[in-house]
Amino acid sequence: MRTETTPSAGDDRDILLVIHAGAGDRRKDADPERTRIAETDLARALDAGYALLEQGGDALDAVCAAIRVMEDAPEFNAGRGAALTSEGKVSMDACLMGGDGEVGSVAGLDTARHPIDVARAVKERTKHVMFARPSEELLRSWGIELRDPDYFVTQARRDSLERARRDGDAWEKHGTIGAVARDAEGHVAAGTSTGGITNQMPGRVGDTPQTGCGNYAADGVAAVSGTGIGEAFVRTVAAHQVADRIRFAGQDPREAAEAVLDDIAAHRGDGGLIVVPDHGPGVVAYNSETMNFGYATPWGRRVHA
Amino acid sequence: MRTETTPSAGDDRDILLVIHAGAGDRRKDADPERTRIAETDLARALDAGYALLEQGGDALDAVCAAIRVMEDAPEFNAGRGAALTSEGKVSMDACLMGGDGEVGSVAGLDTARHPIDVARAVKERTKHVMFARPSEELLRSWGIELRDPDYFVTQARRDSLERARRDGDAWEKHGTIGAVARDAEGHVAAGTSTGGITNQMPGRVGDTPQTGCGNYAADGVAAVSGTGIGEAFVRTVAAHQVADRIRFAGQDPREAAEAVLDDIAAHRGDGGLIVVPDHGPGVVAYNSETMNFGYATPWGRRVHA
Repeated sequence: MRTETTPSAGDDRDILLVIHAGAGDRRKDADPERTRIAETDLARALDAGYALLEQGGDALDAVCAAIRVMEDAPEFNAGRGAALTSEGKVSMDACLMGGDGEVGSVAGLDTARHPIDVARAVKERTKHVMFARPSEELLRSWGIELRDPDYFVTQARRDSLERARRDGDAWEKHGTIGAVARDAEGHVAAGTSTGGITNQMPGRVGDTPQTGCGNYAADGVAAVSGTGIGEAFVRTVAAHQVADRIRFAGQDPREAAEAVLDDIAAHRGDGGLIVVPDHGPGVVAYNSETMNFGYATPWGRRVHA
Repeated sequence: MRTETTPSAGDDRDILLVIHAGAGDRRKDADPERTRIAETDLARALDAGYALLEQGGDALDAVCAAIRVMEDAPEFNAGRGAALTSEGKVSMDACLMGGDGEVGSVAGLDTARHPIDVARAVKERTKHVMFARPSEELLRSWGIELRDPDYFVTQARRDSLERARRDGDAWEKHGTIGAVARDAEGHVAAGTSTGGITNQMPGRVGDTPQTGCGNYAADGVAAVSGTGIGEAFVRTVAAHQVADRIRFAGQDPREAAEAVLDDIAAHRGDGGLIVVPDHGPGVVAYNSETMNFGYATPWGRRVHA
């Protein structure tokens, strides 16, 4: 288990943005150039979201801005560069939740450039909270930017799919991106976006769009986003469990995140969690080998890939 | 708020089965004959599940047996007699979770006679936890009994859809069925099955298949199933919140269920919850006008419609 706490002035309620872009095993094909690209894109995502917080923007907008950058970055498993299913297609899921409890999520997208925009549309343009495979007509009516399915497919993901088909069930764990933020008003928000796992069966839905599993936010408590073996995050209702440990068990965010990662390990999984609590520093914790993350606060910033 | 506690011998761990078949407003077309049919089918569902518990069967099997009876009963909104979407079709969701944390769920079925069987297949025949609109080929490979889409459509649901189309958004709240059980070994399980809401937009997913929202089970804590305005159960991660209030806040199951229903009301919803805790009596609680429910214990049984 590795845990890192963001720099802070004690129990403050300063603005805060924490992001992640996947957790998993150390890649055999990792090289300094790929690490540099990942760090550059994490920094760009932080900049996009944190600039809004500094201008007094709200946590939801900051979360979406950071996620949109990571969805466009082809090396992360969301939006362009999403993992390919056993049929060689992308199938993208996302969830966005504000600290007021309003939430939207979506599963099975294959044409939306920014899945997080679809989650936001579900949250703000419908009376519902989740859609599976919404029609293109519906996406257009929500003003979603659509791309040809080929836009999403990168050579690196084609290679991953070939390897997975050849070697059996090599799960692509370097996945799921997310962002959690606290704004100047003290509201929190959480967003998560994913391409799922390489070579997954058509129709498989992971933790991301199941509210409370991979993504959760509640003002006065915390915003949480997860990445890793999604099935274990579902069995443990991981993101909501972090919040409930803070809310009901009186644990601090670090204890809560570590306890939930232990529970995830007990349910045949690993991964990472990012937490922005109502007050005090944010937390990055993971029990996978690696995790891509970054944070920005008035007291310092950092990216790690 | 109405709350009812099952008869018990104090803090026992006796076998226990609690079921529900929807919560909502008092139907304008309610009549004694329909109430009698609902009570008869609730009693049949209880018999089917409780007989297994009495024979030493496990909680999962009892939950599935009770749900299969209610899925076949055309007056309940699950399986045959499920609500119709705006396109006049059924779109059924289900979730099954054992107290060991193993879970399966499914969204968007239109041919499976017993959606709960599909949830069980996801749980036990795949390494995943949720599928959206699994193909017929996949359902067949899991041995699922399929029916022609017309099998599911009843005249009463056609009439409801006509009314909803004519009168605008009249949500069909009489919905979702579920069962929670504790077996002779002390294990718990929860299952929930639904046809969603009348006239819903194609692709809408409610709380049922989102683990922790409409359905949750954890040995040593509780099994929980919900029915009502699904969107509010998602915003509050209702079923998991009940369990966490017991686990982390030390609340008794009745307090926990009532507190979560208050939270649901604060998130623009109402409905009902059934809870079977690790030990002690079960709970039925609802803040909707009505709820169909039943329970069976060594100390007594009851059905209410």
